[in-house]
Amino acid sequence: MRPRDVLVVLTERWADWEAGLAIAEVNSVSRYTVKTIAEDTKPKVSIGGIRAEIDRTINQYDDFDNLAMVILPGSFSWQESRHEEIADFITRARSFNVPVAAICGGTIFLGKHGFLDNVRHTGDDQELFQREQGYNGQRNYISAQIAADGGWITANETASVDFAREIFRVLEIDTEEEIARWYDRFSA
Amino acid sequence: MRPRDVLVVLTERWADWEAGLAIAEVNSVSRYTVKTIAEDTKPKVSIGGIRAEIDRTINQYDDFDNLAMVILPGSFSWQESRHEEIADFITRARSFNVPVAAICGGTIFLGKHGFLDNVRHTGDDQELFQREQGYNGQRNYISAQIAADGGWITANETASVDFAREIFRVLEIDTEEEIARWYDRFSA
Repeated sequence: MRPRDVLVVLTERWADWEAGLAIAEVNSVSRYTVKTIAEDTKPKVSIGGIRAEIDRTINQYDDFDNLAMVILPGSFSWQESRHEEIADFITRARSFNVPVAAICGGTIFLGKHGFLDNVRHTGDDQELFQREQGYNGQRNYISAQIAADGGWITANETASVDFAREIFRVLEIDTEEEIARWYDRFSA
Repeated sequence: MRPRDVLVVLTERWADWEAGLAIAEVNSVSRYTVKTIAEDTKPKVSIGGIRAEIDRTINQYDDFDNLAMVILPGSFSWQESRHEEIADFITRARSFNVPVAAICGGTIFLGKHGFLDNVRHTGDDQELFQREQGYNGQRNYISAQIAADGGWITANETASVDFAREIFRVLEIDTEEEIARWYDRFSA
């Protein structure tokens, strides 16, 4: 069986540490394959200086039936541009019921485009989706440590372990017991 | 002033999450620049599927006077080969008193080549450099969460926040108070 795609959306100055734990485990499961996707094929340099090559481009991707999840790591670029093409891509993915997981700036991006307007909080944390005025008066959503609701997972920048756990649950990469064991190791 | 190099040694299937926090902060400080280095120029794919381009090769690097630190993230490759060229490079870097920071498999690699034989424990953790028989009878060193001694920093795979903090201290990227504040946020 062909492995299902898990796409990591990379933009300039993506945050090295935010999705790393999640994608390392997911890509180790044979029924998933992690690919990078971006607005163009130019390598995207992380905040830490890693030049990551791009496997797919937003415009050419058309394999939504085989798409298991879209992951949006933070990056400095989310604040600098609206990234309309990526927003259209997210809309398209959601129309196929593909879950979307965002952390840090990725969450701000989703909020800015209204994707989180009707998301209901079902996570553990109490202060979810606090609203505040954004850098140019737009309504932004600042997620608390972690939130998961239906097709959306959001997390803040220090919550990469919680973020990974929610992704593992949605993708069912292992039993709940094994995921809990992993979580205990990495959150200690 | 030319920024000083901080080199991240990449091998096949490097661990995405282990050095990410450290390099993101270090590369944000103007007096350092993070570069990837490897045995050859072929991009090195992380466990999570990130294809990282290589900035420098081990054989051609000769800028030790400007080298501030060498970082060895874990990778599946450390167990598969002895990586003699990288060991020679570490010897060379140490002859210039360049500090070396290793996490997870990177620590095993250092132990296998005898680099940690005379390292004295000065860190916080009590069970440092426990010895155990390696996969083929070699003496390996399994570091506890974190250890720092002179020019060496070692950490295990779940200690990326502690690993980053020790690197920040050695490179003096900020005041001890600011580093402590960073640590509190990310270790919470």
